[in-house]
Amino acid sequence: MGERERDILRDVRARAGRRAARALRVGIGDDAAVLAVRRGEELVVTTDFSLEDVHFRRAWHAPEAVGHKCLARGLSDIAAMGARPVAAFLSLAVPREFTRGTRGARSWTDRFYDGLLALASRWDVPLAGGDLAQAPGGTDARVAADIVVVGAVQRGRALLRSGARAGDLLYVTGTLGGAAAELRALMRSNERTPAQPPARVRGITTATAEHPHFFPEPRISIGRALVRRGLATAAIDISDGLSMDLLHLCEESGLSAELDAALLPLGSGATLEDALHGGDDYELLFTADKDARVSRALGGVPVRRIGRMLRRKSGAPQMMLVEDGQRRELKAEGWQHF
Amino acid sequence: MGERERDILRDVRARAGRRAARALRVGIGDDAAVLAVRRGEELVVTTDFSLEDVHFRRAWHAPEAVGHKCLARGLSDIAAMGARPVAAFLSLAVPREFTRGTRGARSWTDRFYDGLLALASRWDVPLAGGDLAQAPGGTDARVAADIVVVGAVQRGRALLRSGARAGDLLYVTGTLGGAAAELRALMRSNERTPAQPPARVRGITTATAEHPHFFPEPRISIGRALVRRGLATAAIDISDGLSMDLLHLCEESGLSAELDAALLPLGSGATLEDALHGGDDYELLFTADKDARVSRALGGVPVRRIGRMLRRKSGAPQMMLVEDGQRRELKAEGWQHF
Repeated sequence: MGERERDILRDVRARAGRRAARALRVGIGDDAAVLAVRRGEELVVTTDFSLEDVHFRRAWHAPEAVGHKCLARGLSDIAAMGARPVAAFLSLAVPREFTRGTRGARSWTDRFYDGLLALASRWDVPLAGGDLAQAPGGTDARVAADIVVVGAVQRGRALLRSGARAGDLLYVTGTLGGAAAELRALMRSNERTPAQPPARVRGITTATAEHPHFFPEPRISIGRALVRRGLATAAIDISDGLSMDLLHLCEESGLSAELDAALLPLGSGATLEDALHGGDDYELLFTADKDARVSRALGGVPVRRIGRMLRRKSGAPQMMLVEDGQRRELKAEGWQHF
Repeated sequence: MGERERDILRDVRARAGRRAARALRVGIGDDAAVLAVRRGEELVVTTDFSLEDVHFRRAWHAPEAVGHKCLARGLSDIAAMGARPVAAFLSLAVPREFTRGTRGARSWTDRFYDGLLALASRWDVPLAGGDLAQAPGGTDARVAADIVVVGAVQRGRALLRSGARAGDLLYVTGTLGGAAAELRALMRSNERTPAQPPARVRGITTATAEHPHFFPEPRISIGRALVRRGLATAAIDISDGLSMDLLHLCEESGLSAELDAALLPLGSGATLEDALHGGDDYELLFTADKDARVSRALGGVPVRRIGRMLRRKSGAPQMMLVEDGQRRELKAEGWQHF
């Protein structure tokens, strides 16, 4: 680690420490962090890579948005388990020039931490450790960020993908396809090549609900409410797209499923295809007994019934889509992040 | 994630599951892993990047050695806290061709997991989650691996860097400088450029104590013994070199220190400079009260007294080296991994 990296980490350590939650006994600065959880709790641990040119492009995504989304992905996994976040850890490798500001402007790395720490602060999650390294590859070096989030949940109460039963109803939080629609709109807004950003992108550096692709909101309160009320039998977050994540839920629960196209809550500008296959929505998809009383909103976020779980007839899970009275097979489609 | 990546992860999931420790309630396959710790325990969490061309070279280091060392670095941090490892998480990005075997040979990625899982199995640490992605950058893509290890230790008993007191004696496990000496010997063994490996390197694919640079051994049993016997006041692992890590210990404890050159246990082929500044040794450096009865060996590994902690006179920590009756200042020197 060079002097510049050391300075940045020292600054981050100070900022991360200000809000250090009580659970954090020892944070950045020792061989490892020391965390306390409450009696009767289990740990939940998730890791997510954010790779340049896979999950974001430096020309398209402001560093604040990359930092925000990096942590949001981890927090979303914690939300999908119904857990509370306890601490986050970030390993970050950046090209050499990304640690240097220009003409008084903050460096890419500083702005990345700005976005990440703003979200961390909002959910009271201390950044408890990690690493800052120079990415190898000289002028071809690319950013690689690995976020780890540790959470805690009452023993035996974590929301798993494997808990759904045939006959359970399927619910989704918020809206679907908004992130994909936003990205498409931006891509159409000019004729530039993907390596060059549409002019509108440059202003998107602070979190607002209008920019679901750039600043997704993790559904932590909803996940915790589901656990507290004992409502959900299974849950997953929709990061790969509804069709792909529903397939994961079906696989782990040993079931099939049916979606009702008319019930899908479309995000701003989203088509049915966006809602079915667009990724990066970070909403929660969960199942509940058909007799469970699921509120129409949790923590101010709408909750919509969109289908149901079915007994599996053959070896592989089958997904069906009901649209205009017709029933057709729904294939899971992989999502390219951008 | 492509089909090939999915196949590899499916295989790893099966292998990682075989030894899944009881602490692991839910492993690979859900949004996050669920871990249980025992009553009265705290959590210890560490993350370490292993980057190609920073921590290893593909031409020099067999994939098994890269996988072993990747996990060994995390386990060594857990050892330095005096904790027991509970679970590991790996985020791995590799160039596309690294997931493909050739002519019946296992792929780089498969062999990386071989090395990592062999060490994990030896310490009974389940691989509980993570990610496998294609590294961006086309033909310039480089390997990036981030290892997370979660451990547990009795509440309030973790060995911190900050616990040393003036007058405490300094101890080190095993020998010092052996990793640096091994690397130097290999570099001298022929005249090739660093991008090409000496012929001898190619055979180093399995863990033996003769190859400290390629297959370092984490000192987990020793860390746990230090906690159990209440012997150490502070501890750190020597990954950056003795001088640099002693500086960290001094900084966090607010002290200065003095080393006795004649007491340093030199590894095979190591010079005094190797022992002072060579990195990658992964031994434990710890402090204990001058009246504490520290065994000359712990878990079969020699433990040597090498110096003592001193009250700090000015703002910055000072390190002294006593050699041939002379006392001179010792500067911390950064270590290039290879």
